[in-house]
Amino acid sequence: MSLIVQKFGGSSVANAEGIKRVAKRIVETRKAGHEVVVVVSAMGDTTDELLDLAKSVSPLPTGRELDMLLTAGERISMALLAMAIKGLGVEARSYTGSQAGMITDGRHGSARIVDVTPGRVREALDVGAVAIVAGFQGFNRGTGDITTLGRGGSDTSAVALAAALDAEVCEIYTDVDGIFTADPRVVPTARKIDTITSEEMLELAAAGAKVLYIRAVEYARRHGVTLHVRSSFNNNPGTIVRNAREGDTMEEPIIAGIASDLTEAKITVVGVPDIPGKAAQIFTIVASTDANIDMIVQNVSSAATGLADISFTLPKSDGARVLQVLENNKADVGFTSLQYDDQIGKLALVGAGMRTNAGVSAKLFTALFEAGINIEMISTSEIRISVVTRADTINDAVRVVHSAFGLDSDVEALVHGGTGR
Amino acid sequence: MSLIVQKFGGSSVANAEGIKRVAKRIVETRKAGHEVVVVVSAMGDTTDELLDLAKSVSPLPTGRELDMLLTAGERISMALLAMAIKGLGVEARSYTGSQAGMITDGRHGSARIVDVTPGRVREALDVGAVAIVAGFQGFNRGTGDITTLGRGGSDTSAVALAAALDAEVCEIYTDVDGIFTADPRVVPTARKIDTITSEEMLELAAAGAKVLYIRAVEYARRHGVTLHVRSSFNNNPGTIVRNAREGDTMEEPIIAGIASDLTEAKITVVGVPDIPGKAAQIFTIVASTDANIDMIVQNVSSAATGLADISFTLPKSDGARVLQVLENNKADVGFTSLQYDDQIGKLALVGAGMRTNAGVSAKLFTALFEAGINIEMISTSEIRISVVTRADTINDAVRVVHSAFGLDSDVEALVHGGTGR
Repeated sequence: MSLIVQKFGGSSVANAEGIKRVAKRIVETRKAGHEVVVVVSAMGDTTDELLDLAKSVSPLPTGRELDMLLTAGERISMALLAMAIKGLGVEARSYTGSQAGMITDGRHGSARIVDVTPGRVREALDVGAVAIVAGFQGFNRGTGDITTLGRGGSDTSAVALAAALDAEVCEIYTDVDGIFTADPRVVPTARKIDTITSEEMLELAAAGAKVLYIRAVEYARRHGVTLHVRSSFNNNPGTIVRNAREGDTMEEPIIAGIASDLTEAKITVVGVPDIPGKAAQIFTIVASTDANIDMIVQNVSSAATGLADISFTLPKSDGARVLQVLENNKADVGFTSLQYDDQIGKLALVGAGMRTNAGVSAKLFTALFEAGINIEMISTSEIRISVVTRADTINDAVRVVHSAFGLDSDVEALVHGGTGR
Repeated sequence: MSLIVQKFGGSSVANAEGIKRVAKRIVETRKAGHEVVVVVSAMGDTTDELLDLAKSVSPLPTGRELDMLLTAGERISMALLAMAIKGLGVEARSYTGSQAGMITDGRHGSARIVDVTPGRVREALDVGAVAIVAGFQGFNRGTGDITTLGRGGSDTSAVALAAALDAEVCEIYTDVDGIFTADPRVVPTARKIDTITSEEMLELAAAGAKVLYIRAVEYARRHGVTLHVRSSFNNNPGTIVRNAREGDTMEEPIIAGIASDLTEAKITVVGVPDIPGKAAQIFTIVASTDANIDMIVQNVSSAATGLADISFTLPKSDGARVLQVLENNKADVGFTSLQYDDQIGKLALVGAGMRTNAGVSAKLFTALFEAGINIEMISTSEIRISVVTRADTINDAVRVVHSAFGLDSDVEALVHGGTGR
């Protein structure tokens, strides 16, 4: 008998129908002899509806009260799910984040987990019950206040419980069949990935793959939790995400997949004096806004002027804020002007070992060149190559790169042992 | 500076508009220099909507999960109310039943308060904040599970907090101006009562007056909490409900008001052997169903047959259950048959000292006789006379009795010192 954590998102429990379907799946897992801990999000649009209500009574609701409000969402879904499971003849008990021992710091709206003490969850399992835990929420032991974990919080709750309970696997249920080599809506021939390392998954998630949140993957990697990303609509095996193991080292560069992202913008700081410490000064200013900076490129400075340009990408939602703070420090930094471009697209090619194989970059750039797609920025990491192009060419870019690396499912697979279907 | 507990029901906070209106009133009280603890119910129809959801996923949801589900309702309203108050520049903090120290027994859906330890509420007051507490909910310290107090629970929460915090007054806000001498929808000339004793209020509530729940009045009486029932739509003084004091004793019978109730039915057990212990046997059987029995009348037995009839009233919702259990014990008790009548109306005349004044009963019966209304059952208590009539005559009955006792507001008031307006 092994312990399995199953996480269901808001779209899986959007209505009574969905709740009953999810309950059935949980009961099947329990009846197969496993101990089951379920982490559930708020139903469908509940969170957005609650946020709208908050806005309608207060222009700037405080974090403590917003968290109190939003946590009502999972309270509803978890209680209904427990009822539905009991209706199928299996004992089930629901627990709030605080009852389940999800202890966090005090940052309302984006709390970090500092400890997990799932004693009551363990007791429920010991008497044969399924434990249903509210995702996304925790509590600050110092103040006794309720907190929420922020975006992707339920995935993180599930992974944290899996780690604390030493679960065999943490199953993340979603509305797609798993992680794909590219977004299937962009690349119809994209293939489901059977197994991917946490490191690769992190890069894919950072590059815009939406199925898993970076934070949950990071937590899983740090605690050695194996994730299984799969569909709540069928019983097909999904994608296993686990830490790299000894035997994983291969000589061939492995391309795990391609991610693209249209939510970022580019800011260029024009005419920065090319003297030491200027880049540090700029990014200290940017960091003060808490914006998530991704790619950074500094042009070679012009010998004639002694001025350089520094470009970086960031979420469009952070754009105005960062422009403002830079503008406020213009004289201090001494740059000439700012440019803002929100018509960019980002493509990232992710796979272990690509850094040691120069051919990968060459193949990527060639494929884009042959398709007439201009590359505006390039950045590389241990297992990722990212490029920025015009937004309206990004889908074409994903398709040609997907083909160039032989990832299309009608081509004999070079990596990951076939389509897995 | 005095401490005031203010309780707002679901209709007062049914939408953003209502929440902002209530917030404004709370802020006014705070700014007048009082410490304010607010008890709030779930918004409008939230509780019914959650119950519908529960029914849609499970035919027979268990108490623990139902309580977990329903308590999401106040969580939403209290967080929104705290936000709205802070939006008006006054510090406010919301607390769940368990955070506010509402400790109950483990009866899910109808838990009884066993202790109130409002340490965190006191702390909030000490730093000048308004404390918003979720009504209706508590927790069982033994199991750590969330409980609800059942119907009228929010009134009871408010009274219990007022008692624990030694509040000067517990204000119960509602959609009417206070307690009236009769239901104003039935008797347009009904007068608002300025002051009423807890005992009278208990009898009125038991007799069908809907504004306050019996349970909250009982709690208030036992702990000496003064209630002020008033409208959330205006600033008029409402009705003060407090324990009888030394100076209250008067020689004139005081008629506080008239209540009527159409929610009850009558069961008659026909042909009960007139031997000792039969009534006890019947009501022991009835008590096993937890039904709330109100009036009981035993007819004089027929000397010829040695058989008597016993009638009693009970909520219509308990009717089927009680009939069933009596039928199951028919042979044992030895009665002939059962009659069920759900077309009855109950009228109660309430006032201190009426028992010592035989004229009150006489005046009541005469008024009904002159209006051609037949009396089917009579029962009396220290401060109440109740009669049962046909359901379709009950409103006429209330009007003629209201007139007969000079309660109409265009008549010079004999009691309670005028209209108070």
